[in-house]
Amino acid sequence: MALPSDTFPTDARAIRAMIRTGAHAAHTAGLAPGKLQCNLAILPERFALDFLRFCQRNPKPCPVVGVSETGDPFLPTLGQDIDIRTDVPRYRVFRGGVLTEEVTDIAALWTEEMVTVALGCSFTFENALLRAGVPVRHIESGRNVPMYRSNIALQPAGPFSGTMVVTMRPIPEALVAKAHAISARYPQAHGGPIATGDPKAIGIADLGKPDYGDAVEVKPGEVPVYWACGVTPQNVLLDAQLPLCITHAPGHMLITDVAEDAETTIYTPENA
Amino acid sequence: MALPSDTFPTDARAIRAMIRTGAHAAHTAGLAPGKLQCNLAILPERFALDFLRFCQRNPKPCPVVGVSETGDPFLPTLGQDIDIRTDVPRYRVFRGGVLTEEVTDIAALWTEEMVTVALGCSFTFENALLRAGVPVRHIESGRNVPMYRSNIALQPAGPFSGTMVVTMRPIPEALVAKAHAISARYPQAHGGPIATGDPKAIGIADLGKPDYGDAVEVKPGEVPVYWACGVTPQNVLLDAQLPLCITHAPGHMLITDVAEDAETTIYTPENA
Repeated sequence: MALPSDTFPTDARAIRAMIRTGAHAAHTAGLAPGKLQCNLAILPERFALDFLRFCQRNPKPCPVVGVSETGDPFLPTLGQDIDIRTDVPRYRVFRGGVLTEEVTDIAALWTEEMVTVALGCSFTFENALLRAGVPVRHIESGRNVPMYRSNIALQPAGPFSGTMVVTMRPIPEALVAKAHAISARYPQAHGGPIATGDPKAIGIADLGKPDYGDAVEVKPGEVPVYWACGVTPQNVLLDAQLPLCITHAPGHMLITDVAEDAETTIYTPENA
Repeated sequence: MALPSDTFPTDARAIRAMIRTGAHAAHTAGLAPGKLQCNLAILPERFALDFLRFCQRNPKPCPVVGVSETGDPFLPTLGQDIDIRTDVPRYRVFRGGVLTEEVTDIAALWTEEMVTVALGCSFTFENALLRAGVPVRHIESGRNVPMYRSNIALQPAGPFSGTMVVTMRPIPEALVAKAHAISARYPQAHGGPIATGDPKAIGIADLGKPDYGDAVEVKPGEVPVYWACGVTPQNVLLDAQLPLCITHAPGHMLITDVAEDAETTIYTPENA
């Protein structure tokens, strides 16, 4: 796994060029600081309207930040020369609701009927929390964020339905309101928390046993705070058993040219 | 035109009931204080995916706050028992790019292929400006907001393209930054201004001659501030020459049950 070094580029386009050629195939956490990174769902056009309806109805787990033309692998509204077939480090391929492959290039799978939907990710608000002096435990301890299947029902649309996956970050009690206010400024990145405190209230039996990612310690004086998670749409797509859909592999995001604190997620000179 | 009186209901559902029966067929400015009001675009399903792509790419003029199921006239994500065929005071019907009718009920036009897209409107941020002590000239002077065709190009999608329509509000110089910050908190309602100052910089020849609405005075010490306008999608739909599409009549909005300051525009107990 190639780890960022002093000579690793910080420019989003330069990093995408490395990803395109296979020179970087690892996760994207901490890369291209200040640029919006995205979760991905690539699916046949006949499911795209229902999927966009689903995302609109569930904006916290599924904040849409970009949608491609049908059959066009480029995403000009998110940056220069972004080719979704090659510019993500690692993809997951699902067929009929089963994960069949994990690959570093989807050129062979791309067809004239595919539509790419890019969704915001939690890196954006985590960076904002850190800048504001709110500690983020899993980053401090070099782990993946703990994620849990909650019992919070999603608003259905067409074949898409299910319950929300949430992330948990332990926040010092005195900083909970601040963490809420800061993350709420980023609706394109899951927004404010969806719950605080007792895990059982949202159907989580044991914080020590996350469904995905790594457990982290909740220290005395800290409160578990829950945010909507970008794994939610992956699970929903899986359950919908589409004949073919493609997502990024967890942590291996699309890096865009859009500033993560821009007012909209559309690539323009003022949003770069 | 029935004007609100002391006995006029303030409850959104009660007002929609009056609209449904024809007891209120006038504009909705100032009605159901605190509730989100919406611009509307109703169009055949085969154009809906492109229209949602268009809105996603142009979030300031076209902030999507609700999308119906195909053929379903109800909008449960925006409130209780909202029937889009009857619950808007006045509709405009466009056929092949021509405004053919203005009606108070579209039950006879509704078909199994229709999709409703609800878009946020400027009432939301105007209420926030007024609460914060920022004057809004056209409201002070009992006029419609002045609207102008700008030269700001929209991001195209399918048959949808064009230039942005903007509203102008003269703001005292010392309050421009405040007006910007407050409106930017409402991405579901056009967000922050898209330009400030010289009208010619965005292709407006004469502020005294708006393309829609009424001219308002810009007093000494005030700066013209421009926001993206919900008339934009109406013009774009017109230019796309769809065989049939339906919008609200200007000012005659859909009143929802969603609080206009809710974090998302989805009707839930906490957003009501």
